[in-house]
Amino acid sequence: MSQIKTEIIGVGTELLLGQIANTNAQWISERMAENGFSVFHHAVVGDNLQRVVAQFEQSAERSDVIIVTGGLGPTEDDMTREAFQKISNLEMVEHGPSMDKIEAFFKKRNSVMTENNRRQARMFKGAKVVENQVGMAPGMMVSHQNSMWVFLPGVPREMKAMITNTVLPYLKQHTGEHTVIKSTMLRFIGIGESRLEDELKDIIHGQSNPTVAPLAQNEGVAIRVTAKASSEAEAFELIESTKQQILSKTGGHFYGSDEQSLAEKVFGLLKNRGLFIAAAESLTGGMFMERLVALEGASKVCSGGIVCYDTKVKENVLRVSPETITQYGTISEQCAGEMAENSCSVLGADIGISFTGVAGPDAQEGHSPGTVFIGIHAIGKETVIKKCVFQGDRNTIRERSVIKGFELLMNFLEKEL
Amino acid sequence: MSQIKTEIIGVGTELLLGQIANTNAQWISERMAENGFSVFHHAVVGDNLQRVVAQFEQSAERSDVIIVTGGLGPTEDDMTREAFQKISNLEMVEHGPSMDKIEAFFKKRNSVMTENNRRQARMFKGAKVVENQVGMAPGMMVSHQNSMWVFLPGVPREMKAMITNTVLPYLKQHTGEHTVIKSTMLRFIGIGESRLEDELKDIIHGQSNPTVAPLAQNEGVAIRVTAKASSEAEAFELIESTKQQILSKTGGHFYGSDEQSLAEKVFGLLKNRGLFIAAAESLTGGMFMERLVALEGASKVCSGGIVCYDTKVKENVLRVSPETITQYGTISEQCAGEMAENSCSVLGADIGISFTGVAGPDAQEGHSPGTVFIGIHAIGKETVIKKCVFQGDRNTIRERSVIKGFELLMNFLEKEL
Repeated sequence: MSQIKTEIIGVGTELLLGQIANTNAQWISERMAENGFSVFHHAVVGDNLQRVVAQFEQSAERSDVIIVTGGLGPTEDDMTREAFQKISNLEMVEHGPSMDKIEAFFKKRNSVMTENNRRQARMFKGAKVVENQVGMAPGMMVSHQNSMWVFLPGVPREMKAMITNTVLPYLKQHTGEHTVIKSTMLRFIGIGESRLEDELKDIIHGQSNPTVAPLAQNEGVAIRVTAKASSEAEAFELIESTKQQILSKTGGHFYGSDEQSLAEKVFGLLKNRGLFIAAAESLTGGMFMERLVALEGASKVCSGGIVCYDTKVKENVLRVSPETITQYGTISEQCAGEMAENSCSVLGADIGISFTGVAGPDAQEGHSPGTVFIGIHAIGKETVIKKCVFQGDRNTIRERSVIKGFELLMNFLEKEL
Repeated sequence: MSQIKTEIIGVGTELLLGQIANTNAQWISERMAENGFSVFHHAVVGDNLQRVVAQFEQSAERSDVIIVTGGLGPTEDDMTREAFQKISNLEMVEHGPSMDKIEAFFKKRNSVMTENNRRQARMFKGAKVVENQVGMAPGMMVSHQNSMWVFLPGVPREMKAMITNTVLPYLKQHTGEHTVIKSTMLRFIGIGESRLEDELKDIIHGQSNPTVAPLAQNEGVAIRVTAKASSEAEAFELIESTKQQILSKTGGHFYGSDEQSLAEKVFGLLKNRGLFIAAAESLTGGMFMERLVALEGASKVCSGGIVCYDTKVKENVLRVSPETITQYGTISEQCAGEMAENSCSVLGADIGISFTGVAGPDAQEGHSPGTVFIGIHAIGKETVIKKCVFQGDRNTIRERSVIKGFELLMNFLEKEL
């Protein structure tokens, strides 16, 4: 097994002032580990030419692959190019296609490109340009002396796409790194981390390849299964067999693998059944529907939603009966039921979900913050209503309501429809 | 003004595997900045004696204060003590009170103390012990050659208490550092980073205290103004006067300071004017309204919203006229206008905002992804409609639409109402 020494340098004074955490280094490290590269150092240095140069000199001595994030922007604060030029003496040239892209960006917005934006198209001679598919400024990879240097923007979204689409494939191809480390996340809902760990303790302690580790997540709990092997196929087999062992013990709570979200799971169930969904959202304020509309192809499953934060909207638009509201209040099983039912008829959907409750910080209608009713109605089926009590601040309660809504909906779709 | 060069080293392979982010370095950096210490480097190194020693040697050369977190635990993985002994040749002795505490800890839990736990009570001769008030193992501060070394556990809760209660007071007392550093963020929308820098270049280059630095943000651009002074009051005055200079040049785009979001700004404007808002959201799917409902007191400004992802909902619930849709399409100025106007009447609000456009990935009604119409209507005022063209993937386009909506609304509220 070759040992490629990798190092990740973050350039930016905002990191040294503690305004942001170095999550770029974390994310890149995870990807590198998955692909069999050893990261031996993280370093952070501010927007100061002398110190960036000193850092680069040191990194060049100790590492084979050096990934630098940040310091590539258009302003004079951005030192990465200048610093690398000082240690490499490589000539810089303007990269035509990148310059065209930058100019087009400004033209499309009808805004004037200032001269300093040209800096972003400057590349070291002989560098491989790393195309930025989600932003404006490109990155680059340069081989210098015994190291491979990778320069990427500090914006996480742009950096991530560039690592995934270009840098990792290139590094794997050019370093002869052939150990494969594969990881999969198995995602569970409706079961706590300690209970899951307890049920799986024989599997967790009984083997070292794959390793099995439970992780608390925003949406339920995940189990990370990580296998080392000499080929993808072998790693895949190792993972698959452990996955089957795990699911045989806890399958009922399993909802998906890897990056699959609960929203995607529900989206798939709706799509397979050809069902359109509507939502009536009070305390969640549109968060539920927004998670579905975020997914490509939303028009195949989403009718629409009504954010009925105001009681008048519950009555006038959602047509919840005034008697229900007078007799039981808006935070009630009855109101949640009518909201779910009427969302179907008003919005022309097959299935409706409703959220009404107290996000806080103040109590409402005699209910303390965290009291939430979630209703689900499918045409021709009995309406299901669940009363929940969540802990946490306003937005935690809102977030947990939405997650619970997806969980209930998943179970409802799998069992009832 | 003295310039104490500080450096923060995290020891632990879990950081290099990306299992956790280096939030310790962020937190310490923030505290150091507030207290006038300049942090020039972050470094992370794994549980490997040789590499920890190499890192320590390098840090000793460049920094006055070196704060090391992690690697102090009881297992053989924990290298921090051994590494420092290698570079300092300082003798290690068992610290009686710390050993007593460790023994008491195990006795209290009725568990057996293994021999390796003794390691945690070992201190360098002459070190100041940093008591751990929320955990078991102590930290220490050691003066060696020209640097002050601070060793702390990696557990954030323990490390934080030790920094606050012991390390910072000690450092301030022993370094004669009485400088206060205060920072504020001024937030702008509707102006690019390079244009803002261009307008402010005299201010940016003309002064060193406060420093003025532009930063790209998710919501527009921010300017960070950072002042060093000998008192809070003096720092505040310096910042205030620079802020006035900046606003006199770019005030029209300014929307808030520090952590204020655009949604909060708009929320405040609505509340001050006693206005209720409604939203008609197609491609944004509820994201706009969800940002407002996330704020405490949302019931004072939010009527509600309609997520009209489906054309039928635009017609049946929002009552957009079928002629408009047939003649101009749903992605049109006309449809956006009716959506904004009707959201007011249907939801009983004073002001309505609408979003209709193509999130992608596919084109729609002959418009390419990123084409978005945003409408704003206030009762008794002419409806305003803005056509935008955004770059990026589906969710970037949706996110940018919402941010643009808040920007337009802010301008509308400030100028028209």
